[in-house]
Amino acid sequence: MQAPISSPDIPDLVGRRLADELAVRRGEVVQIDPRLGTPVDELIRFTLHGGKRLRPQFLWCGWLAGGGPTDGPQADAALSAAASLELIQACALVHDDIIDRSETRRGEPSTHRAMAKLHAGQGFAGDGEHYGVSIALILGDLALAWADDMFDAAALALPAPAEAWTAWRAMRTEVLAGQLLDLRTAVGSPDPAQQAQDAMTVNRYKTAAYTVERPLHLGAALAGASAGTVAALRAFGRDVGIAFQLRDDLLGVFGDPVVTGKPAGDDLVEGKKTLLLATARTELARTPDLLAELDAGVGAVTTEHQVSWLIELIAGTRAVEQMEQRIAALFDSGMRALERAVLPTEALDRITALAVAATQRTR
Amino acid sequence: MQAPISSPDIPDLVGRRLADELAVRRGEVVQIDPRLGTPVDELIRFTLHGGKRLRPQFLWCGWLAGGGPTDGPQADAALSAAASLELIQACALVHDDIIDRSETRRGEPSTHRAMAKLHAGQGFAGDGEHYGVSIALILGDLALAWADDMFDAAALALPAPAEAWTAWRAMRTEVLAGQLLDLRTAVGSPDPAQQAQDAMTVNRYKTAAYTVERPLHLGAALAGASAGTVAALRAFGRDVGIAFQLRDDLLGVFGDPVVTGKPAGDDLVEGKKTLLLATARTELARTPDLLAELDAGVGAVTTEHQVSWLIELIAGTRAVEQMEQRIAALFDSGMRALERAVLPTEALDRITALAVAATQRTR
Repeated sequence: MQAPISSPDIPDLVGRRLADELAVRRGEVVQIDPRLGTPVDELIRFTLHGGKRLRPQFLWCGWLAGGGPTDGPQADAALSAAASLELIQACALVHDDIIDRSETRRGEPSTHRAMAKLHAGQGFAGDGEHYGVSIALILGDLALAWADDMFDAAALALPAPAEAWTAWRAMRTEVLAGQLLDLRTAVGSPDPAQQAQDAMTVNRYKTAAYTVERPLHLGAALAGASAGTVAALRAFGRDVGIAFQLRDDLLGVFGDPVVTGKPAGDDLVEGKKTLLLATARTELARTPDLLAELDAGVGAVTTEHQVSWLIELIAGTRAVEQMEQRIAALFDSGMRALERAVLPTEALDRITALAVAATQRTR
Repeated sequence: MQAPISSPDIPDLVGRRLADELAVRRGEVVQIDPRLGTPVDELIRFTLHGGKRLRPQFLWCGWLAGGGPTDGPQADAALSAAASLELIQACALVHDDIIDRSETRRGEPSTHRAMAKLHAGQGFAGDGEHYGVSIALILGDLALAWADDMFDAAALALPAPAEAWTAWRAMRTEVLAGQLLDLRTAVGSPDPAQQAQDAMTVNRYKTAAYTVERPLHLGAALAGASAGTVAALRAFGRDVGIAFQLRDDLLGVFGDPVVTGKPAGDDLVEGKKTLLLATARTELARTPDLLAELDAGVGAVTTEHQVSWLIELIAGTRAVEQMEQRIAALFDSGMRALERAVLPTEALDRITALAVAATQRTR
């Protein structure tokens, strides 16, 4: 007999479930060739090192909101479905790091860099950088395929999986389309209004749908929730998910490097086209010299001094204030949407706590 | 009322099914942002342009072998499952072309090249080559996710999907592990015996399992075939699938460019570590000067003259003869494995015809 699953334990339980699942999958791969243990171990290390396990936590909240039990084989299947989201996330991050040419992730070498280092360390033949990218690309594919396998098995163990598959299907398309749009808008129009609109679309699909709305939807659907509950959770998820991204944008410019673990003004160095940046650009339209300095600097600055100057430029506008107002408004409208459903107390408490944490965090 | 599905029509029917499915998925993406129509159209063009539709044909043979009907809703679901394999293949080829830095595919620009050209043509900002690779990477992910969606929906419409999911799960891990091993062996040991063994493992998982064994397994499992039928089809698929790859290796060196659509000696230019090459290297062990010339040339030659000399070197050994013998032996053992099952006449005839075509083809 297992003890009932307690919500605060979800991150740990998800980590353990992933470890079990990945040990099985690793076994299948090394049976093909033992040398494949090395790259697969890198994927496993990366996945288990983990982050906040936010998506599994929202899925579990959706499950509770839909009246799903906290113990027994059905709760066990819901936990597997929650864990499968972390494999989608592993694919997204490994592939994103290739796209962004990121050297590090969570303070460690990114997967393609780790594999390039291995190439050098082992004295392999050929181009080590390209080897690293190639291995990481396939490891990401493996994570995506394994996410589907893990979710499918979980859904099949539950009574009414059809609605959950609809959410699963939509979620993966949304996050990938959001990523395509992010790439497309990065090379496009410098018009601040268009940029603001694009940033909001990317926020909605690449972040909100994938991080909050669909995980809640998946959990609720797996539990057989009513259409009304699903609609309330999704409306909440859209708003709070966007607020989560807007907080991320603020931290990407103003976050304390000691707390975030990222360099100060990281988004400005990377040249990310955030709503914060689009808003600051709109604000600076009346001072074309400053706007030109901002535009010349974003994505091009290298020294700490240059970054500080860009941060100061943005801080001098009302953009931060506007972002804080939007975050607060989105949090409020999200909570109002939630009130339209009658939720079990534990579900409501957990969702509220996660919403606060996601929108008011400092890292 | 639809007419019964006739096996020779499978490639066309699969093409039409893919067109329908991709039109729906495109709709979901452009609803997020109309500009995303452009990259998705590139994926659609690529997938519909298609190849021989070999994998769907084998799946359909497995379906017939398992006693699946040729008309009605179940046949329709089996056709969708067959078509879903072409989306896995789209992901594999788009990602392979990034890894191999291929400029062309089937005489057209590869997906990452097409997207880089678009970047240049539209005057987008930034690094066009990297933009092309980034978009192609995500389009491959989208194809992989959509393959799962299409397969899941098909499997759920059939009475006993569990065994089919087992095959689906194994197939994707096998092809990706085969690709990882292909990358790993390309940078490794120059020992011909090890190379020969590695080439056979890659042939088995990257090609045979993915092209013949698992498609047959999937079709049979979806039809609810007996364990004996599945075992016979899989044994056949392993042998004929490897023979298919050995034929491919011969065509990659000796194929007529007019017929294959690839440059003469393409595999030698690319430096592919095939069983043919490993065998030629073993044969040349007694003439170290010639072996050194071969080793120096493979993966390094550029002129037609140099390529011709490498082709001549290999043709001067008994490697070709040995490959032909192995292909014939694998074909025979595959056909003997097939005899262990009692198959409907149409299934047996189609499987035999495909096996002949796959192992005796000239392109």
